[in-house]
Amino acid sequence: MINIAILGFGVVGAGVAEVIAMNSDSIAQHLGEELKVKHILDIRDFPDSPFADLITHESSDVFSDPEVKVVVETIGGAKIAYEFTKQALSAGKSVVTSNKELVATHGVELMELAKANGCQYLYEAAVGGGIPIIRPLHRCLAANKILRIAGIVNGTTNYILTNMRTAGLSYDEALKQAQAKGYAEQNPSADVDGIDAQRKLSILSSIALNGDYVAPEEINTTGISDITLEDIDFATKIDCSVKLLAIFSNMDENKPSAFVAPFFVAKKSQLAPVEGVFNAVLVKGNAVGTTMYYGRGAGKLPTASAVVGDVLEASRAPEANAYTKNWHKCDGRVTAEFDDIKTNIIVRAKAGSMENLNDKFSTYNTAAVWDGNDCCAVIVYDILHKDIEKLVSSVDGKWLHYME
Amino acid sequence: MINIAILGFGVVGAGVAEVIAMNSDSIAQHLGEELKVKHILDIRDFPDSPFADLITHESSDVFSDPEVKVVVETIGGAKIAYEFTKQALSAGKSVVTSNKELVATHGVELMELAKANGCQYLYEAAVGGGIPIIRPLHRCLAANKILRIAGIVNGTTNYILTNMRTAGLSYDEALKQAQAKGYAEQNPSADVDGIDAQRKLSILSSIALNGDYVAPEEINTTGISDITLEDIDFATKIDCSVKLLAIFSNMDENKPSAFVAPFFVAKKSQLAPVEGVFNAVLVKGNAVGTTMYYGRGAGKLPTASAVVGDVLEASRAPEANAYTKNWHKCDGRVTAEFDDIKTNIIVRAKAGSMENLNDKFSTYNTAAVWDGNDCCAVIVYDILHKDIEKLVSSVDGKWLHYME
Repeated sequence: MINIAILGFGVVGAGVAEVIAMNSDSIAQHLGEELKVKHILDIRDFPDSPFADLITHESSDVFSDPEVKVVVETIGGAKIAYEFTKQALSAGKSVVTSNKELVATHGVELMELAKANGCQYLYEAAVGGGIPIIRPLHRCLAANKILRIAGIVNGTTNYILTNMRTAGLSYDEALKQAQAKGYAEQNPSADVDGIDAQRKLSILSSIALNGDYVAPEEINTTGISDITLEDIDFATKIDCSVKLLAIFSNMDENKPSAFVAPFFVAKKSQLAPVEGVFNAVLVKGNAVGTTMYYGRGAGKLPTASAVVGDVLEASRAPEANAYTKNWHKCDGRVTAEFDDIKTNIIVRAKAGSMENLNDKFSTYNTAAVWDGNDCCAVIVYDILHKDIEKLVSSVDGKWLHYME
Repeated sequence: MINIAILGFGVVGAGVAEVIAMNSDSIAQHLGEELKVKHILDIRDFPDSPFADLITHESSDVFSDPEVKVVVETIGGAKIAYEFTKQALSAGKSVVTSNKELVATHGVELMELAKANGCQYLYEAAVGGGIPIIRPLHRCLAANKILRIAGIVNGTTNYILTNMRTAGLSYDEALKQAQAKGYAEQNPSADVDGIDAQRKLSILSSIALNGDYVAPEEINTTGISDITLEDIDFATKIDCSVKLLAIFSNMDENKPSAFVAPFFVAKKSQLAPVEGVFNAVLVKGNAVGTTMYYGRGAGKLPTASAVVGDVLEASRAPEANAYTKNWHKCDGRVTAEFDDIKTNIIVRAKAGSMENLNDKFSTYNTAAVWDGNDCCAVIVYDILHKDIEKLVSSVDGKWLHYME
């Protein structure tokens, strides 16, 4: 029998206990022995939970119990979760987490600590919820140079953007609905300002660069709070959807780049039909070409699915190397300055200004996408971020990133 | 340094050598040491290949070389590949393969042999080419009961069906074009008759059932050679695409089921936009919900990407358990008889016969999908395969499977 402990009995922590109970037979078949939740550490009591008698308030019950081989950290945040993770790893217990903030912030140190103590620090659930993405990226695509990642990695913002389009709601109305449905927090900043996506992109980029750690602070991030219903309606006109994308690129000889921003995504893209709380990540490797991973990026049981998958991995081979190469801090920033990253954008300006648009952007490759009574718009290819604002204001226009 | 050998220098074998050469730095970073192709076994010479001096015609050069830790089998077929795989595993060398026929036919024995000799038999490339699917299915989704798999797993047939629609070609014309482009063999039977898809479904089903081996012979298989341009045009009318699907289902308390057949796939399905030689596999787990994996299902470098990913896995941990639980033969068939499997179909009959259709299928849930001057059609839900032919001929109709 393998004994584990769960730290933090919130939505995901409860999901982990539930999945282990629900699929105990199948999990035992995988593992060759039973998987048992021995302790659940939380400051609260849960008298009505079927797992009430596993609750403890004493962290020493977990960390001093030699029978506990794997610790699930579903506390969230980078404070108490950080301290507890260090304690568990120092005690030689593998830690499995869904905590993107902690992995993105302290991953380098925690992976090192796991290695030093002959155990694992696993985080498949930290990106894409239940969608297998961390292990496929690092293990299945290990033979590739990763050229590009483009992901819808935040379900809350995708739900809001989808709802603005389908129900014709303003951003504020759509946010309120998302909050009412429990898809957005009362303080929605981490989602709508792109911070959650930034952390996930930090994780994906660090893996794609074979462990060169890309800190969240390196990743220029724009959220969705400035997206208007007019943007959404215009996207529909030009056969696009508006999506908040996390972009990593390592296509040429320059530095790799990473940023988070709202995009017009062309309907023909595999990302365009990804609606509501679903997530999807496109990964392009230099051998495999483009692959995509799609599913529920959040939620109790989907996230628990990924956590428990990692628990099985850690139980089977506690002393093996973790499934990703450990990260390491590099001197200075790993990725290019935002100003120096090239991108494609769609610029729109008032009706009748197509000539002016073509004129002002004449040194770029452009393509007209709309010339109507309401406005006109062009795609501008390969423009540096630092050149965007000045040029766009010279035509009194608005712009968003564009992905084909 | 890790030394490997490649058996069979065809398209995929050459791709493996090419990927290892192309990405040697990144691969060495993953592995912590250099990965070197030491021998390539083939009956032919390749004087113009950059790998010409690695070619040997003597299998003993490979099997008696203690430096060779991993053997890549890209011969294909289940004869000489089977003998060589047994020799390699018996010598304690891990084997990595893209050979779905061999895995589907002799996987049980070869996995046992690997285990007995402390090495691995890995086959990520056998399904979906470069798309990560085997490892995600078994490792990342290990906490789930797998309820359903629906996959476009054969690129040749998907190319033909796509081309019939976009270019208005007959099946025979589209097949000829596919052959001219190298997407179909001169004897196309393994692809167009669904045999390749059947083998891949045998592999996916055996993994989904935690190692209960589903033999290819259990899987009722219909190919695409009877699909007409009329079927394709009708699909477009009713907002569907025609796709050859490999279906595994384990939804209820009955036996699991598995079959391969052409389907009308509704446009809203994630599988509908998968065009040309691309593959995609939907996997539904009872915790994670629906996930999808998409990419190039065949081709030199994509398939080599998966093979070399497995080579790295086998090099890192040759004595670890393979990434899937070993399979075992069960008494009798594992899956339900085809006749006893329920499915959804679309039945179409001559114009004006809607009343007759509703009458003949009155004991089923049905939904009208078309009532035009050319024909009329209904969806019939949850019909047993054994009841289809009689009922459809009673309305003088045609039918295909249907997936929403």
